Amino acid sequence: MPDSAPADNAYSQLENRFRRLNALSEAQEILHWDMSTVMPRGGHEARSEQLAELAAVHHGMLTATETGDLIAAAEDAADNLTEWQRANLREIKRRYVKATALTEDLVTRLSRASTTCEAVWRDARADNDFKAVQPYVAELLTLVREQARVKSETLGLGLYDSLLADYEPGGRSDEIDSVFAELEAFLPPFLEQVLENQARQPQIIQPDGPFPEATQKALGRKFMELLGFDFHHGRLDVSLHPFCGGTPDDVRITTRYDEDDFTSALMGVLHETGHALYERGLPQDWRGQPVGHALGMSVHESQSLMIEMQVCRSKTFLHFAAPIMRETFKGSGPAWEADNLFRLYTKVERSFIRVDADEVTYPAHVILRYRLEKALIEGDMEIPDLPGAWDDGMERLLGIRPPTDTLGCMQDIHWYDGAWGYFPTYTLGAMTAAQLYAAAREQDAEIEPAIGRGDFAPLLAWLRTHVHGKGSFESARDLLVHATGNPLDPKVFEHHLKTRYLAD
Amino acid sequence: MPDSAPADNAYSQLENRFRRLNALSEAQEILHWDMSTVMPRGGHEARSEQLAELAAVHHGMLTATETGDLIAAAEDAADNLTEWQRANLREIKRRYVKATALTEDLVTRLSRASTTCEAVWRDARADNDFKAVQPYVAELLTLVREQARVKSETLGLGLYDSLLADYEPGGRSDEIDSVFAELEAFLPPFLEQVLENQARQPQIIQPDGPFPEATQKALGRKFMELLGFDFHHGRLDVSLHPFCGGTPDDVRITTRYDEDDFTSALMGVLHETGHALYERGLPQDWRGQPVGHALGMSVHESQSLMIEMQVCRSKTFLHFAAPIMRETFKGSGPAWEADNLFRLYTKVERSFIRVDADEVTYPAHVILRYRLEKALIEGDMEIPDLPGAWDDGMERLLGIRPPTDTLGCMQDIHWYDGAWGYFPTYTLGAMTAAQLYAAAREQDAEIEPAIGRGDFAPLLAWLRTHVHGKGSFESARDLLVHATGNPLDPKVFEHHLKTRYLAD
Repeated sequence: MPDSAPADNAYSQLENRFRRLNALSEAQEILHWDMSTVMPRGGHEARSEQLAELAAVHHGMLTATETGDLIAAAEDAADNLTEWQRANLREIKRRYVKATALTEDLVTRLSRASTTCEAVWRDARADNDFKAVQPYVAELLTLVREQARVKSETLGLGLYDSLLADYEPGGRSDEIDSVFAELEAFLPPFLEQVLENQARQPQIIQPDGPFPEATQKALGRKFMELLGFDFHHGRLDVSLHPFCGGTPDDVRITTRYDEDDFTSALMGVLHETGHALYERGLPQDWRGQPVGHALGMSVHESQSLMIEMQVCRSKTFLHFAAPIMRETFKGSGPAWEADNLFRLYTKVERSFIRVDADEVTYPAHVILRYRLEKALIEGDMEIPDLPGAWDDGMERLLGIRPPTDTLGCMQDIHWYDGAWGYFPTYTLGAMTAAQLYAAAREQDAEIEPAIGRGDFAPLLAWLRTHVHGKGSFESARDLLVHATGNPLDPKVFEHHLKTRYLAD
Repeated sequence: MPDSAPADNAYSQLENRFRRLNALSEAQEILHWDMSTVMPRGGHEARSEQLAELAAVHHGMLTATETGDLIAAAEDAADNLTEWQRANLREIKRRYVKATALTEDLVTRLSRASTTCEAVWRDARADNDFKAVQPYVAELLTLVREQARVKSETLGLGLYDSLLADYEPGGRSDEIDSVFAELEAFLPPFLEQVLENQARQPQIIQPDGPFPEATQKALGRKFMELLGFDFHHGRLDVSLHPFCGGTPDDVRITTRYDEDDFTSALMGVLHETGHALYERGLPQDWRGQPVGHALGMSVHESQSLMIEMQVCRSKTFLHFAAPIMRETFKGSGPAWEADNLFRLYTKVERSFIRVDADEVTYPAHVILRYRLEKALIEGDMEIPDLPGAWDDGMERLLGIRPPTDTLGCMQDIHWYDGAWGYFPTYTLGAMTAAQLYAAAREQDAEIEPAIGRGDFAPLLAWLRTHVHGKGSFESARDLLVHATGNPLDPKVFEHHLKTRYLAD
């Protein structure tokens, strides 16, 4: 690690402390992975205690007075630090401020209210009974507003931005408002065009199964390896909800197989592979330090959507991949033709459920949630008004009205589990992916032809340089400007959508 | 948990502190399991840091001045405690004294010397070059002697006993000397008799494979379930070296399959199942507290050997199991007859390697190591004399002389990794298993007939009451006296061997 400061000064002591904190976080990551993949159900209670204890030890070490003193001392002597060390100190301070902003009492009340609300929500969603969860989510919102108020003062940010900061450091709602407004104007008429265009295309043919789990896994591993996933430093497993976990040197992605339809699990694997390549490509010299960690959620999601949406749902990739898929499953007939698989993988439809939504309608789901949570956090709306506002929003944005709250405002866990300010990062990620991929292809004309031959090395090299290897050195905004020449521009995303969905 | 003391007194604070320490230990257990079973190799460095950090946090919390103060205060008010609480306090103190007995400097030097010596030993063993490892193990022994000297003073124990105490709390070498002397006189002539008797038996027929791994696993799981292993609270996996890991509510055993020979992996699974049943049966009311933990290694090994040696290598079990094995592998012919499988599973031969040794010759391997390590620790022997003394001992005890040090004094990792004082627990465990099983069958005449029908519930009930459910409430000696009416008596083990190996 570049080190211009003596080993015993405040900054070096901070590095040591955050290396230890990172080891504790990594232990938690592995225990979470274990819990989601292999843990016998009877181990749940003991695991909760293990995780709670690790969290307590981590919190104690992070928020110790000594941490704050060392930060102040290191800032006083920041002139002796390299550029990366200064960035690391900034990230260290951000974590410290975030961890100490809230009183232990408020943290505990938030945690309890979230746990309770989430449990009630599970039943309420199953029973389509919003009234049952209403008082719990209202109580939780009261605490979330209190959290926003306190953090807003400490961080000098607006109410919404102070929550957004947990997921998107440096994220600003005024910028989001502006790009979402642009998208919101673009999407409804565009969706009409796409659906009309789609209606003129040949009928989509679903490949016939069954598709044995072991064969699906082998195919997923094959594509993962082609994309650059290093199994010496990672795994592919099964879990109920697919995720990317583990640590940069031990990246673990999961999927869930359906033996009647391989297409969904495969694309899920490729999506998580995008997350995994990012984690694995974080700067080796800064392993374990805050500046060596992934940036916020929008950049992380941009990396999964880069691989899934920009690369693997493209005609270029599918023309390369279709014969491999067909041979793997011993398929035959028109279902296995690349153009059919492309139509299958780019099918657009109005639907109620965000997680099942396609690339075109997904932003509408996100924009709706963003507007609603912003209004709720800022006190412009109250929980009893949520179901109606949700349904009105869906009608306005997508032209459909949910028949139930289960298919409406109760579908996502986020709000009921205390994660407010998270939603916009999905669509910021999608737009970032489009902009990065456009810039990458412009800067290296070999990237797309290589993908057509199953060679992902040029793309990965570009991502390593312009995204992965940057860690948290600069903000998402600066990273995008340095990589693409421009701040986030919804026109690039719109161009991508038009090219893909309005071509004949 | 029975609690006669108010929640804020010293004893209660200790319970809380040791519950937290237990959560940290359990996290380490799961990370160790992960490292041995599923971790990609490239994750090794990061994992070492995670484990080192957890060990450091654990050590810091355990050895904090506050822990000692609380112990002193709790001892002053011990009259208010229940019997189990007092036993818990005793175990708490034992851990504290053990952890604080050595200076951090000595611990670090021991750890470094062990790591270095173990690495050199791996190559030296492969090259059959004892001279290469000699200076390293000599340096390590110097530190081990220093460790024994310091602990001996703190604990008021003899040099050897102060090291033995890490594996066998309350273990005494004078008692071991006495039972091992008895065994040592018994074994050599007995071995002659066994080999003569064996020569008169029909030839052993090895069942013909291949035996697919998945089928072996299914068979192992079937027997595990019959024995009482609860898969809601446990797992069976694969690792290079079989072990029982995890936590009492999430017990994880491993094995290693050979598709040409199912017998070894199967018996390994049953052995680890014995360990697992013990962990799972530890007192539920004392989960996470020191008194709720397993007793020393001899009782732990007695539980694996109870299942493997006493139960599963018996004619009674094999008459029940043989048809199941045959059907599982679609076998036929005399190889699958119970009597043949019994001869296969009780084959005795003079051999050089402890871990491959049979029930009759195993104690000779252990007695040799015990004598040698005791002489080395107590300064009656030096490392350069080890190879010769080893070979002489093998000749005396087993009548064979190792042709190389790789097949002699370099075969086991223990000494080279700093684990001195461990070896006797293997044979103490074997003798304890024989004595417990004899008492169990005497006290419940249904136990053996039930096993013949594949019903292990009566045996498990007896073990839950007399061994598992006791945790660390009393010493191994007291546990054995309470369960069997007598302290450890080698005659019972000898009787078992005679009954099994001299019958016709």
